[in-house]
Amino acid sequence: MKKAVTYDLINKDANTGARRGVMHTPHGDVQTPVFMPVGTQATVKAMKPEDVAALGHEGAQIILANTYHLYLRPGHELVRRAGGLHKFMNWDRAILTDSGGFQVFSLGDLRKITEEGVSFRSYIDGSKHMFTPESSMEVQNALGADIIMAFDECAPPDADYDYIAKSQARTSRWLRRCADAHKRPEDQALFGIMQGGFFKDLRQQSADTIVDLDLPGYAIGGISVGEPKEKYVGVLDYAVDMLPADRPRYVMGIGTPDYILEAVERGVDMFDCVEPTRLARHGMAMTSHGRLNIDNAKYFDDFTPIDPECDCYCCRNYSRAYARHLFHQKNPEILGSMLLAEHNLYFLVRLAENIRKAIEEDRFAEFKKEFLDKYGC
Amino acid sequence: MKKAVTYDLINKDANTGARRGVMHTPHGDVQTPVFMPVGTQATVKAMKPEDVAALGHEGAQIILANTYHLYLRPGHELVRRAGGLHKFMNWDRAILTDSGGFQVFSLGDLRKITEEGVSFRSYIDGSKHMFTPESSMEVQNALGADIIMAFDECAPPDADYDYIAKSQARTSRWLRRCADAHKRPEDQALFGIMQGGFFKDLRQQSADTIVDLDLPGYAIGGISVGEPKEKYVGVLDYAVDMLPADRPRYVMGIGTPDYILEAVERGVDMFDCVEPTRLARHGMAMTSHGRLNIDNAKYFDDFTPIDPECDCYCCRNYSRAYARHLFHQKNPEILGSMLLAEHNLYFLVRLAENIRKAIEEDRFAEFKKEFLDKYGC
Repeated sequence: MKKAVTYDLINKDANTGARRGVMHTPHGDVQTPVFMPVGTQATVKAMKPEDVAALGHEGAQIILANTYHLYLRPGHELVRRAGGLHKFMNWDRAILTDSGGFQVFSLGDLRKITEEGVSFRSYIDGSKHMFTPESSMEVQNALGADIIMAFDECAPPDADYDYIAKSQARTSRWLRRCADAHKRPEDQALFGIMQGGFFKDLRQQSADTIVDLDLPGYAIGGISVGEPKEKYVGVLDYAVDMLPADRPRYVMGIGTPDYILEAVERGVDMFDCVEPTRLARHGMAMTSHGRLNIDNAKYFDDFTPIDPECDCYCCRNYSRAYARHLFHQKNPEILGSMLLAEHNLYFLVRLAENIRKAIEEDRFAEFKKEFLDKYGC
Repeated sequence: MKKAVTYDLINKDANTGARRGVMHTPHGDVQTPVFMPVGTQATVKAMKPEDVAALGHEGAQIILANTYHLYLRPGHELVRRAGGLHKFMNWDRAILTDSGGFQVFSLGDLRKITEEGVSFRSYIDGSKHMFTPESSMEVQNALGADIIMAFDECAPPDADYDYIAKSQARTSRWLRRCADAHKRPEDQALFGIMQGGFFKDLRQQSADTIVDLDLPGYAIGGISVGEPKEKYVGVLDYAVDMLPADRPRYVMGIGTPDYILEAVERGVDMFDCVEPTRLARHGMAMTSHGRLNIDNAKYFDDFTPIDPECDCYCCRNYSRAYARHLFHQKNPEILGSMLLAEHNLYFLVRLAENIRKAIEEDRFAEFKKEFLDKYGC
């Protein structure tokens, strides 16, 4: 059977685990390592899709949308009737949808986990819902993204060995149910998610089961949000190599340059994060010298660009003084969010481009050091 | 002395007072009749300037910015140091600034009028300020727009004859002070404003005084906001012809198609209004068949464009269902405001283009009737 997404390795960096590859999807090729802008509700916040496609020098080739949000509003059936997510949101390049798992687990007391799945209440109207591996596939099949994610349990990072062991085993059973329920394998690639917390043997157990299913790609789950860098890197040190080298590898929810670079160094290919657009709406810019709060009084009459080393639309055409003016209002001007969203996403898309070039030239380690020295991490 | 802005009449409609012309400004030609998008705080809300310049088939050639807002934040001196409004906001076509008068008169109890000018308190920090004809010119000279407006009193529409008579006379005295204080007549054209309420003799008195000053353009003030159409049209019926035919004529704050068409029919050339972008932020679209509230439940699964007769970016690429999805959120998506702002401004810029074509072809009256029949006015 034709696979929806295939991966070709282009080259490995001579001195690190970093690798340069390409994913072939039904909506075009995606050069890796890649940073994927997030369009939670079928819109990358404050940006037109054409401007997303023009980010960096090569353009963003894939974005992410959220199953949980689109399931609740406007509903996956509406999106299916609209002709799928690509058509609905006017984006003809690749899309990845998450499983909805992370969002429902984040609901805390509002959700309940059983072997069947997770029941939860809608934040919109309090109505009862249930996500199962089967329903997550049904929703993602209707949305129609090029890459869809397995429905996994995102266990609490501080859970003990026994909890993680049971949770990881259930996630593997759920993955098999996902694979069985997935109706459009020729159009949509199902990626598995490895769990196992911070326990190497559980990560190995998880990897063994999910790799057995011979899926077109794999993610490393459970290390994304708020973990100290040592613990994050500690898992990557052994977990990446448990996954097959001929498939793309994905760490979800990562958008800080140092976390991206550590993962790339160990052979991870894909990243996404809402932070660039969220920071933008709060007037925070990501720059080659670290973060900058544009509403700071010192930028009142600063007529230099937000990042003098950046060649994005915002930095080519506007000053810090103008950007600060847009934010320094009782109701900040929408253009401020637009400019900073484009700038921040450009920054990360461009970072991935520069990472790819460095790997092609076997100088990833030097690139990483130079970048982080300047960035201040 | 070289004049900053000159006006050439291209042709008059054979059957009405409508006229087709062009204003030559330091930042390019402006074809008239024209609708000017408003960028209150040096940004047309929710739009990039390049997208404003691309509105309609010929592009928006002039926008308006507000002196009062920019004086308070970020301050005209900052804008001057930034190289002027054009450079500050990345807009290299023509700009018109109002005088600040309308906003300070709207402050009600927070302002006090004397012969000298108007003292008022800042809505930002309660600090005391005063606008005079001289200070309005100083601020507008610093902002650097191509067309600047005289500082006039916007008298209450229900004021009696005596009040309007005195107010109109003071506005004329203020206009002379404006002309004397204006420091950059070679770069910036000062437009006078006729007042006189709904009294024909007072309008004539006002016109006689201001026309004497031989200014490059004139506005008809005091009929813009919330007047019934009969009273509005009633003033236009006699007031337009009191102004010189070889200068552009401007009615401020008008953005509804029927009010625009009535004024054009009587020989008015320029219009502006914040409504298109304000409506957009509330999910209201202007269409060839009237207004449409996109958050209405009936658009949930309506996969047609917002206005099937419109060829704007929004209508070419998105459905009502998608636009409704963007607005039907606890926090409406920014892209919703972006799409509807572009659509609504496109609608009015395109209306002005179609008006110009109709005048060129001596069929303005037919065009007006057909447009309004469909629009439902």
